[in-house]
Amino acid sequence: MLEDKNPQRTTLENLGEFGLIKHLTQNFKLNHDSSVLGIGDDAAVLDFKGKKTIITTDMLVEGIHFDLSYMPLKHLGYKSVIVNLSDIYAMNANATQITVSIAVSNRFPLEALEEFYEGVAMACKMYNVDLVGGDTTSSTTGMLISITAIGIAEENEIVPRSGSKPNDLLVVSGDLGGAYLGLQVLEREKEVFKVNPNNQPDLEPYSYIVERQLKPEARKDIVALLQKLDVKPTAMIDISDGLSSEILHLCEQSSTGCNLFEDKIPLDPTVMSTSEEFKMDVTTIALSGGEDYELLFTIDQSDFPKIKGNPNLTVIGHITDKGEGAHLITRGDTKIPVSAQGWNSFNP
Amino acid sequence: MLEDKNPQRTTLENLGEFGLIKHLTQNFKLNHDSSVLGIGDDAAVLDFKGKKTIITTDMLVEGIHFDLSYMPLKHLGYKSVIVNLSDIYAMNANATQITVSIAVSNRFPLEALEEFYEGVAMACKMYNVDLVGGDTTSSTTGMLISITAIGIAEENEIVPRSGSKPNDLLVVSGDLGGAYLGLQVLEREKEVFKVNPNNQPDLEPYSYIVERQLKPEARKDIVALLQKLDVKPTAMIDISDGLSSEILHLCEQSSTGCNLFEDKIPLDPTVMSTSEEFKMDVTTIALSGGEDYELLFTIDQSDFPKIKGNPNLTVIGHITDKGEGAHLITRGDTKIPVSAQGWNSFNP
Repeated sequence: MLEDKNPQRTTLENLGEFGLIKHLTQNFKLNHDSSVLGIGDDAAVLDFKGKKTIITTDMLVEGIHFDLSYMPLKHLGYKSVIVNLSDIYAMNANATQITVSIAVSNRFPLEALEEFYEGVAMACKMYNVDLVGGDTTSSTTGMLISITAIGIAEENEIVPRSGSKPNDLLVVSGDLGGAYLGLQVLEREKEVFKVNPNNQPDLEPYSYIVERQLKPEARKDIVALLQKLDVKPTAMIDISDGLSSEILHLCEQSSTGCNLFEDKIPLDPTVMSTSEEFKMDVTTIALSGGEDYELLFTIDQSDFPKIKGNPNLTVIGHITDKGEGAHLITRGDTKIPVSAQGWNSFNP
Repeated sequence: MLEDKNPQRTTLENLGEFGLIKHLTQNFKLNHDSSVLGIGDDAAVLDFKGKKTIITTDMLVEGIHFDLSYMPLKHLGYKSVIVNLSDIYAMNANATQITVSIAVSNRFPLEALEEFYEGVAMACKMYNVDLVGGDTTSSTTGMLISITAIGIAEENEIVPRSGSKPNDLLVVSGDLGGAYLGLQVLEREKEVFKVNPNNQPDLEPYSYIVERQLKPEARKDIVALLQKLDVKPTAMIDISDGLSSEILHLCEQSSTGCNLFEDKIPLDPTVMSTSEEFKMDVTTIALSGGEDYELLFTIDQSDFPKIKGNPNLTVIGHITDKGEGAHLITRGDTKIPVSAQGWNSFNP
């Protein structure tokens, strides 16, 4: 018997827009009391019963934000949700609903969208968020994703970027630079594959950083941990564009400066070994790589005992007066201004 | 003195993403008490003080939903907001906030985005909605817009699509078919322009329908009018895809059928004359043209005296049992099933 090597391909035209939305979203259930009415009407209805509503939105474009040659669609669906949830957690809020809009060219069959939505569903399940709306349409070329995430918080829980004050400690969750290096590994494998399509890449030694790139997580656990530790950050932001860019945002909006210590930046061993392999400066990668989706926040010094020694949290510096500016104190004890393109300044 | 015929062109690279967002949104003010925190943090914060939150989202893709060769960017910005607000009003709710995400290729200078945001700002002002968030990114080709609109309503005010019952009257606001015919006029002029770029089109006789296409309005006024008349529709939907498609949605979600009378469908004189000029059936256009952004709703018969004679509202039929199906009663008194592609059925 001959094996059918072609995976199933159902063209989207056969389903039509409404059939498509119904098909893709039929297994999504509403789990939150605040999700009053989901997909299927002109709009969704939410009820936050007097609490604050938190809204954020992000757009992902094929060829700019992702490359389908090494990004499986299921991972893409998952990651697209994660990058939005991360912004909600960065407000110290809880994510409750998302809307997912997607535009695809006719090179995508139904099965591709199903895979994408499998990833969306997995993220919804992992993070307990309800899919309540969206739009599905055609594009002239490639795939585009726009997601809006909605969250909930009590007024006194919300942590904006603007609340840090001099002498606060600068804290980061997890470790940095992995997602960027994972991307470098994947791009190198893509080049190898172009030359020799039979080459089987061994990604095993890079599994941590490849996963940081392909299947990042949002730090909902850190929001819960801080609550458990009874620590309310004075300011918080998520690290999507690299540590230096986010530090500058936080300082600008808080009207403060900061001192950041190079030797305190948390790095995974794989990040250190791979950056050596790629002959790249590991600090530069942590400062400017981006896509880590960790949380960067400031706490009052009096809260230090509560977080001290916690393996998920690292104190990497402190806040100063605005006039002092934002500086990196290097391992060699040199003071360098933090800039959004850190690699230009100190990696000549 | 020589005139500089090149409009100013500022490339987006010079500004950077954050500079760009700041630049484009600096003149947007927050007007609603429910807008607690707007653009500039990880997410926006809204407070609906116990009322229900209404959310809808729509994506518009260049080459699919709009053609920049006859759609000025300012109009596009305006219309992109309108199509989303229309969905909020179709829930009988009040629109309060929007987020605007936009992806553009490097063929767009800053001035193009400024024009687009001028249109967004005009719609925000006209409809009193606050811009509270968004995303600005690059695309590999063309322009993509994704807007999420947020609204507010008391629980007992919300009108979903699912509440119509047999004997309810089927009512539509405004008149239908104009936006589709306006598009036909614009596409004809585009063809003429291709042949003779010096030809100056005379669009004056078509100004009503061209405006319906390029600068549609959302029927916030109808929501207010119904409230004033003390009429709460039993079901409501906005007409974005043509009357027949929307009637079928409403009937399906209400588990009802309907009888729609061809001779009751409201048509503007320009729509009638232009459809004749284009040798198109005017009923087909009203049923399937789309983009009218009028409201289609059902009311209890006892409410008929309240709306009778109102120039903004037209009774076009009534709801029946589901078993009777959805039918169009033609001028010739023939009964034809309503189908989402109406033109196939009765325009052979």
